Amino acid sequence: MAASRLRLAMIGGGRGAFIGAVHRMAARLDDRYELVGGVFSSDPQRSRDSGADLRLAPERCYATLDDMLRTERNRPDRVDVVAVVTPNHLHYDPAKRCLEAGFHVICDKPLTTTLAHAEELSHLVGQTKRVFAVTYNYSGYPLVRQAKEMIASGELGDIRVVQTEYAQDWLATPVEATGNKQATWRVDPERSGMAGAIGDIGTHAFHLTEFMTGMRVTQLAADLSIAVPGRRLDDNGQMLMRFANGARASLWASQVAPGNENGLRIRVYGAKAGLEWSQETPNQLRFAPVGEQPRILTRGGPGLGAWAKAAVRVPSGHPEGYIEAFAQIYSDAADLIVASKEGRAASGGALLVPTVADGVRGVQFIQAAVSSSQRNAAWVSL
Amino acid sequence: MAASRLRLAMIGGGRGAFIGAVHRMAARLDDRYELVGGVFSSDPQRSRDSGADLRLAPERCYATLDDMLRTERNRPDRVDVVAVVTPNHLHYDPAKRCLEAGFHVICDKPLTTTLAHAEELSHLVGQTKRVFAVTYNYSGYPLVRQAKEMIASGELGDIRVVQTEYAQDWLATPVEATGNKQATWRVDPERSGMAGAIGDIGTHAFHLTEFMTGMRVTQLAADLSIAVPGRRLDDNGQMLMRFANGARASLWASQVAPGNENGLRIRVYGAKAGLEWSQETPNQLRFAPVGEQPRILTRGGPGLGAWAKAAVRVPSGHPEGYIEAFAQIYSDAADLIVASKEGRAASGGALLVPTVADGVRGVQFIQAAVSSSQRNAAWVSL
Amino acid sequence: MAASRLRLAMIGGGRGAFIGAVHRMAARLDDRYELVGGVFSSDPQRSRDSGADLRLAPERCYATLDDMLRTERNRPDRVDVVAVVTPNHLHYDPAKRCLEAGFHVICDKPLTTTLAHAEELSHLVGQTKRVFAVTYNYSGYPLVRQAKEMIASGELGDIRVVQTEYAQDWLATPVEATGNKQATWRVDPERSGMAGAIGDIGTHAFHLTEFMTGMRVTQLAADLSIAVPGRRLDDNGQMLMRFANGARASLWASQVAPGNENGLRIRVYGAKAGLEWSQETPNQLRFAPVGEQPRILTRGGPGLGAWAKAAVRVPSGHPEGYIEAFAQIYSDAADLIVASKEGRAASGGALLVPTVADGVRGVQFIQAAVSSSQRNAAWVSL
Amino acid sequence: MAASRLRLAMIGGGRGAFIGAVHRMAARLDDRYELVGGVFSSDPQRSRDSGADLRLAPERCYATLDDMLRTERNRPDRVDVVAVVTPNHLHYDPAKRCLEAGFHVICDKPLTTTLAHAEELSHLVGQTKRVFAVTYNYSGYPLVRQAKEMIASGELGDIRVVQTEYAQDWLATPVEATGNKQATWRVDPERSGMAGAIGDIGTHAFHLTEFMTGMRVTQLAADLSIAVPGRRLDDNGQMLMRFANGARASLWASQVAPGNENGLRIRVYGAKAGLEWSQETPNQLRFAPVGEQPRILTRGGPGLGAWAKAAVRVPSGHPEGYIEAFAQIYSDAADLIVASKEGRAASGGALLVPTVADGVRGVQFIQAAVSSSQRNAAWVSL
Repeated sequence: MAASRLRLAMIGGGRGAFIGAVHRMAARLDDRYELVGGVFSSDPQRSRDSGADLRLAPERCYATLDDMLRTERNRPDRVDVVAVVTPNHLHYDPAKRCLEAGFHVICDKPLTTTLAHAEELSHLVGQTKRVFAVTYNYSGYPLVRQAKEMIASGELGDIRVVQTEYAQDWLATPVEATGNKQATWRVDPERSGMAGAIGDIGTHAFHLTEFMTGMRVTQLAADLSIAVPGRRLDDNGQMLMRFANGARASLWASQVAPGNENGLRIRVYGAKAGLEWSQETPNQLRFAPVGEQPRILTRGGPGLGAWAKAAVRVPSGHPEGYIEAFAQIYSDAADLIVASKEGRAASGGALLVPTVADGVRGVQFIQAAVSSSQRNAAWVSL
Repeated sequence: MAASRLRLAMIGGGRGAFIGAVHRMAARLDDRYELVGGVFSSDPQRSRDSGADLRLAPERCYATLDDMLRTERNRPDRVDVVAVVTPNHLHYDPAKRCLEAGFHVICDKPLTTTLAHAEELSHLVGQTKRVFAVTYNYSGYPLVRQAKEMIASGELGDIRVVQTEYAQDWLATPVEATGNKQATWRVDPERSGMAGAIGDIGTHAFHLTEFMTGMRVTQLAADLSIAVPGRRLDDNGQMLMRFANGARASLWASQVAPGNENGLRIRVYGAKAGLEWSQETPNQLRFAPVGEQPRILTRGGPGLGAWAKAAVRVPSGHPEGYIEAFAQIYSDAADLIVASKEGRAASGGALLVPTVADGVRGVQFIQAAVSSSQRNAAWVSL
Repeated sequence: MAASRLRLAMIGGGRGAFIGAVHRMAARLDDRYELVGGVFSSDPQRSRDSGADLRLAPERCYATLDDMLRTERNRPDRVDVVAVVTPNHLHYDPAKRCLEAGFHVICDKPLTTTLAHAEELSHLVGQTKRVFAVTYNYSGYPLVRQAKEMIASGELGDIRVVQTEYAQDWLATPVEATGNKQATWRVDPERSGMAGAIGDIGTHAFHLTEFMTGMRVTQLAADLSIAVPGRRLDDNGQMLMRFANGARASLWASQVAPGNENGLRIRVYGAKAGLEWSQETPNQLRFAPVGEQPRILTRGGPGLGAWAKAAVRVPSGHPEGYIEAFAQIYSDAADLIVASKEGRAASGGALLVPTVADGVRGVQFIQAAVSSSQRNAAWVSL
Repeated sequence: MAASRLRLAMIGGGRGAFIGAVHRMAARLDDRYELVGGVFSSDPQRSRDSGADLRLAPERCYATLDDMLRTERNRPDRVDVVAVVTPNHLHYDPAKRCLEAGFHVICDKPLTTTLAHAEELSHLVGQTKRVFAVTYNYSGYPLVRQAKEMIASGELGDIRVVQTEYAQDWLATPVEATGNKQATWRVDPERSGMAGAIGDIGTHAFHLTEFMTGMRVTQLAADLSIAVPGRRLDDNGQMLMRFANGARASLWASQVAPGNENGLRIRVYGAKAGLEWSQETPNQLRFAPVGEQPRILTRGGPGLGAWAKAAVRVPSGHPEGYIEAFAQIYSDAADLIVASKEGRAASGGALLVPTVADGVRGVQFIQAAVSSSQRNAAWVSL
């Protein structure tokens, strides 16, 4: 008999939300979770209505987090794990309280809007020994993991240069003025935090950079800018970065680049080989050993390592995409949670799940970028 | 409150099967179905074990179809719909009996191994008024539907030329001799039917051709061939086709084309414009009006029609793929079934679901291709 | 000291012509030829004016071929080679007379409008021992030659399937009615011969197929069609082909496929590997060995054989294109001519130059395709 | 009668050189020049031998520049224009002396190894009124000019973000240690100047950025690095840049990025649209207006402006490449020279030819980048 499904509750993600629905599809795809309830909105009626849309038991569609924690704590079939999918400024409090109540947590990124809050969560995870996954979901793509494995095994030699970019265009015009819900909170410092594009997507690019290379950025010099008049947060940012081994990188994040939908792309160059991966064609990885013909690795095709193979659902040529990569994070987190319940160490892909430490790192990145930019792109350590 | 989930049973798809798992992910993704039981294998123990893997109630993991039909018919929470995901030669019998028992059916393709059986099923669907979907799953891709809508609305003008191909390479060597389960039955006339590649993938290419253009092929001249010595069924086939309006097409299906993973591709050319779509990059549709710059339509991007929009889950640039397209067929079939239960006509994407008529058409195609090839590529009407 | 430049005269290619200017750039690029005169138009004044545009000596810009042959024959610096770049129906006569006058000939394709004429020219070449090149220019691309070398050396194993296509869109509307000079003669049976698209571009596709594979097509079944009402010659054609070894092919040529500019593309699949090449991205060749990752060979990149290397002018990544490939034919023909002058055998790329035999073969192909199509796509041997 | 060919001499470009042969093909392609002599090497015998390879009159294959200037000055058929194609440190002196002797000059880039020298040449051009073209050859591509015209005409709106990169891999290993002639001088500060990759290719990327956008970079912050141990000049460099209007850019130049052959690429994003162009696929330009479907402009295809059209030799779909773009610079320079001879203003593409001012600008860029990098990527104005 397969392990039981984990009971999942959700904070946020009510009617009209985007990422909440993604989390739910991700939780469902591999059948490792059962959504049982949550607080889907700060408006109690909307929370209940959203739960009804999801065919949940009305009594588990709570008006407040307090209600949920109080009630669930005492149910025999209590929730195992809580997904926090609210806007950025509302991650910290529910994540903290869920941890304190003994629940495992899956939290959207960026983890918090201040570094102090991020570190506090990290501390609390250490104390409570709960699983805490942060949905840097792009690390769930099989070929991202393949690249990580190839770099870790030395196939690229010493890494010398990394080029990471994440370009979108949906904020190229002031859509926040038209009532676009996704835009409205993202351009608002009260809800988004100290950064705009750098926080929303730059942090994904940064995580991908460190995740794939297995190296730490030690310094950055960032020039954040505002392209659309009237905005208060960056909608474009370019930066130079350096690694401890002397390797150099640049990172570009923009939400005002017409013609780019969700253009997260990374290129890593080492002494022995280079590789390139792009999120919009995620089923291919280009690998170019020095002096040899470039090769195209495919998700499910020949020559994949264990990490990639474990993250593949259907044969090569049958494209998997964003939802599947997101689901991979969820399924690997399920392995972590089950291992935690069973008091044993996890292994395999579970060890690749972004944790609270990655969440902290992301906030450090945002803070460093903002700080550097405020000082005219001075170098800032992180 | 959302409509209840439909109760789904499955015939086939036990441990080690490929397409059964895909059907289950497809059924799960949009949360319209709940898998409740089935006959997962002709081996009763394997059926039960497979059900246990899926966390199903043991009493609903049946040893035989008879058991299932007898028992389920009398349950208050009886199954709504049965997915038939067995090898080709085992579609007809369970589909027939499920229809007769009053269940709706979702059946894999090709529908049957003989045209008589296909027509019998079609007749029975008419009698029983059950929903009968055939998983020509590639018609679930949003941009396939977009192309269909554009052609239907006249944006391409009169269609003149169609080029369809479906190239794979996994049978380029005699893998059936190595125990590959998927290969073994596909190259076996007893289980696969009268055709090999033409039945397995050619029928998808044919369905896509007629689905997208909205036109009927009236004649074909096929040259089926066997590339790998010792095989008894075609592993490659090329054919000329003609439509009623005088338009011409060619179709190529091959499982021995090294470097092709799942290369289903269609190009349609009309008097006013042309378009191209490829399954391996399904989130893009190239549209070229005569005398203008080609445009790239994207899943979720600007300018989509109603059919495509209704089949999109996540924003453009966040790739959706094979599982999502398959899920679309399932979800649209759910709409059909709910409409049937409620005694009303379905609308929207539900009307795009491939039906038993498409299943019959696919078998006609296979029979015509085989017949033509046996007569040295003589023209055969269909 | 390098060998002297060859003295080149041209028949056709006056003001307003397309292919004549291409021949002249091709002749110039590698500095192996000096254009010294010609008959650039059937209108004497236009011939002289065209020559003046080219800064030629007025006395060598002849009013008629007779004039040219009579005069040049007696000059001490007489012409070495004549390029025939007139419309199809005007190839035979000047080519014949130039051969008879002792000149080498470079002739555009298709060689002639009747097979009898083509064979007569072939016979005459044998008698006169002159070099006779036919500008199947796509065979001049380095990566086409690389593919030929790889196939010849067995890297693909036995060839099983070939898919060749040549799609354009410039005749998708009746541009001949608007005075387009290129279109007008191509759709006119008097000037173009028995075929339209099949003669103009299909013959390129056919030559490429036999050139690259090194195999002979033994049978074809063609369905030629007319998409634009009022035309008398095919503007679209699809066909099945068979090789002596049992391999199968299909070939598609169309000038009515919107969105295709000059889409000549070939895919060859053998028992050991497959490869793909497309004229619009000619600096890449995709090579996929069975069970391995596909590799991208580049013009000038790692792993090229002698034929490709010899046809490269600038380093990889610095694109070469159509003019360079055309120039390759000219330069290799120069090697043939110099060898002929010096009474020795040629070697290297010179042996790859399409000859009168290829010209004859092309006319056989056109005749077979037309004949098959007239008999409802019956198989025709060739 | 067409204008006479210009008489061209060459400094450098003898046996074994790369760029000299490119200049010669570029000069030849459009038949605007006749190479008549030069000083092809500092070794007199090698100079003569190189001239013999080129079929030049021995008496015009000079041993020294002095010889050439003294002799040519007095010939009635004296040289019109001198191409300087030596390594960087040998541009200044011959360019200066040729100008002083009254010749027009076409000089390779970067113009000089010091800014003082560059400015002196600029001054001298002003005094002598000679044409002085600098071969920033990538500006000769038709679609680069198309992009420039679209930006100039406001089709992109105010420019906000530019991403330029130029990535190669041929110096990923210490090939200079193996005797590679091209590498040896490029990594040597004595011959290459103060910069390595930034001077060799970064300056192309910079010119392209300013050429296409029509805007001036006002500040940059550069981090140049050395990836291959033992080198004294940068082989990789990343930088942030700012324009006067507040737009931001980043530029990356690398010769140690495995898998990149000649990856010059630019992306420009404005308030109304974005566009992308890549040198390795130069026949396409991607144009994405905000909120509309991206369009693919092709060289020779629909919708091109005057500048692009004037730079096209063969129809769309027939690829042009590096040599053609280089030839465009030569042919436009010929227009400039003829206009100068005739004492009239030039027009059209001639006005797009990179001049000595662009040469100076390139040296300013190199100096600023080196200076910034030496000060830990401090902002430097330019």
